[in-house]
Amino acid sequence: MKVALLDELRAQNPIVFNVSNFVTVQDVANGINAIGASPIMSEEVAEADEMVGLAGAVCLNLGAVTATQVTQIRAVGQSANRQHRPLVIDPVAVGAVKYRMQMATGLLNDFHPDVIRGNAGEIAALAGVDWQAKGIDAGEGTGDRTAIAKACAQKLKCVVILSGPTDVITDGERAVKVLNGTKLFQIHVGSGDMLSSIVAAFCAVTDDYFEAAQTACLVFAAIGQLVAEATPNLGAGTFIMKLLDKLQTATVAEIEGIAAFE
Amino acid sequence: MKVALLDELRAQNPIVFNVSNFVTVQDVANGINAIGASPIMSEEVAEADEMVGLAGAVCLNLGAVTATQVTQIRAVGQSANRQHRPLVIDPVAVGAVKYRMQMATGLLNDFHPDVIRGNAGEIAALAGVDWQAKGIDAGEGTGDRTAIAKACAQKLKCVVILSGPTDVITDGERAVKVLNGTKLFQIHVGSGDMLSSIVAAFCAVTDDYFEAAQTACLVFAAIGQLVAEATPNLGAGTFIMKLLDKLQTATVAEIEGIAAFE
Amino acid sequence: MKVALLDELRAQNPIVFNVSNFVTVQDVANGINAIGASPIMSEEVAEADEMVGLAGAVCLNLGAVTATQVTQIRAVGQSANRQHRPLVIDPVAVGAVKYRMQMATGLLNDFHPDVIRGNAGEIAALAGVDWQAKGIDAGEGTGDRTAIAKACAQKLKCVVILSGPTDVITDGERAVKVLNGTKLFQIHVGSGDMLSSIVAAFCAVTDDYFEAAQTACLVFAAIGQLVAEATPNLGAGTFIMKLLDKLQTATVAEIEGIAAFE
Repeated sequence: MKVALLDELRAQNPIVFNVSNFVTVQDVANGINAIGASPIMSEEVAEADEMVGLAGAVCLNLGAVTATQVTQIRAVGQSANRQHRPLVIDPVAVGAVKYRMQMATGLLNDFHPDVIRGNAGEIAALAGVDWQAKGIDAGEGTGDRTAIAKACAQKLKCVVILSGPTDVITDGERAVKVLNGTKLFQIHVGSGDMLSSIVAAFCAVTDDYFEAAQTACLVFAAIGQLVAEATPNLGAGTFIMKLLDKLQTATVAEIEGIAAFE
Repeated sequence: MKVALLDELRAQNPIVFNVSNFVTVQDVANGINAIGASPIMSEEVAEADEMVGLAGAVCLNLGAVTATQVTQIRAVGQSANRQHRPLVIDPVAVGAVKYRMQMATGLLNDFHPDVIRGNAGEIAALAGVDWQAKGIDAGEGTGDRTAIAKACAQKLKCVVILSGPTDVITDGERAVKVLNGTKLFQIHVGSGDMLSSIVAAFCAVTDDYFEAAQTACLVFAAIGQLVAEATPNLGAGTFIMKLLDKLQTATVAEIEGIAAFE
Repeated sequence: MKVALLDELRAQNPIVFNVSNFVTVQDVANGINAIGASPIMSEEVAEADEMVGLAGAVCLNLGAVTATQVTQIRAVGQSANRQHRPLVIDPVAVGAVKYRMQMATGLLNDFHPDVIRGNAGEIAALAGVDWQAKGIDAGEGTGDRTAIAKACAQKLKCVVILSGPTDVITDGERAVKVLNGTKLFQIHVGSGDMLSSIVAAFCAVTDDYFEAAQTACLVFAAIGQLVAEATPNLGAGTFIMKLLDKLQTATVAEIEGIAAFE
């Protein structure tokens, strides 16, 4: 676990190109900016190659997209592979909605992700494992989360982040758990979307995506925990403001001071 | 007025499917989440039936939609009727923009809403009553707001909420007024959109939509008032954060303690 | 510099029609509302004429738009010219993305803007001057910012705002610099978008767009500075909330008290 990557990220200020869920796009852009990277967004297929070329990493959010956007997402994903940009996929609600599972399956045949970030229901669906998902939430399955994440990583040959109260990060063989966090992440819509884009930002500053994924999860979870612990009874609305504040100012030392992983 | 429905809502955590105005979608999602329901959003017609099937209630916001989205909105509304999901409509700006009035009129021929939530200008337009609307705002008409709401409810055979400093809720015969609230609602864009989706959340936990509509209005208005009263000179920016906080934590007893309706 | 225009704006409460970047649209709507104008948004070409007719000014944001939206933007811009509504253009990322430069160039042949608001990279690109832009940011060019802004204004025969730590406002002959501001504007995504729409709001209350542009820049920059100075170590997340609060309450006297321009 290499928390110092955060300083590297802030020094390099990489551009992260996001095809973002329209529900949470502004929060995601602010989160990328706050942590020290630079967001660009586009829904237009005609500028896909150019946007990918500008970027240090690409994050594709498959939530809440239209058929038109799927065409653009395919072009962006293929361009990222072709231009050798790290590619992070967030398969929103593939565990709950069959249409989205079909869409994601098709896309994952057309390009290769370097990292997939989802909740238990989403990762289980991609792995082909049974799990009870509900709406956009993780659901309440009872499987072994590490086994599910590894199965997904082996099947899709990429790093997988199964995020939740505990994050599991695996490359299919090795697995790390990040134990930091706060329940407030679950109450704020878009916490997962923001994490996915922050994972991409870390992938822009190292070739070791397993390292990048772990570190991003630890940094994000620890910063959330620092925010929650600093203010008793913090509400979900105020939390997002303070989270953005702290993404900008948290130091490597502060994060290392509470880091909990295994 | 059955404020205890709020506890029922929190216990059941119903899924609310929203076709949302892109301007306010993130706030609306956060508001639904904060009060204790679970938001899903989609703009893709191909998953309309599946999304409706997942949901306990559906809210269609007719503001800021394109012709393509109108096709999806029609499919969602018809699916909600077919699958017997309560359907809430928010007819944004039909009082000010002829194009939107035509669009809304067409849609209301194609499916039947259970509840319509709008401001005075919007409800008057749907009722066919003369009223001065301005932009997205209610305008400054002088008609009898209860009579307008009743006319709309009778014409469209549904519960109508005419919201504003005082909310009027009617099933066409009975009418209730909610007197709680704060002027800060008017300064924050999307307060009305959020209320409409919260009405849907309450409709997901009772078959009595007149009861659900009243209770949603009272709960939302009272929580806004509690927030405003807790901090003198609260600004509109900070208000929305504190509103999200309080949507999550306000108790039935707190709301009953200041409830003002007739 | 006529800061009292702010009181005029609040008294008139003009409608500002925005075709807005989907990334920042909610913040922009809230900013317009907070300063005392009234936002309307639409992406549907069929209501373009009607929306322009309702509005006192129009702001077109060229960032993050699809080919379909370009068609609507063209219709809105032409309608604004035809209906004599002041027209503000925000040419997001034309300095960094060739596709966007081509799109913007095409649009600027089809309608005439009254004011263009961009960062140094964007204004230099429109002026045909060499400058290093990066992503959505201004880049680190070294040219004379006043000369670049004047060249752009002369070329496109409109008022130009080259915004940044110092804003340059010019009609091609005269130039004013606004020295107020805070670094927090750069950390919050959408500060520029919000400024562009606030410029439009000021253009709705005076025929002198050079005056309106200067005043909007001064008011926005000074309010940001007041917010930053009131709270030491303010973070970017909390900043936007407090900015919205202060847009609503800042007085002409407060702004004049710290106004710095030349």
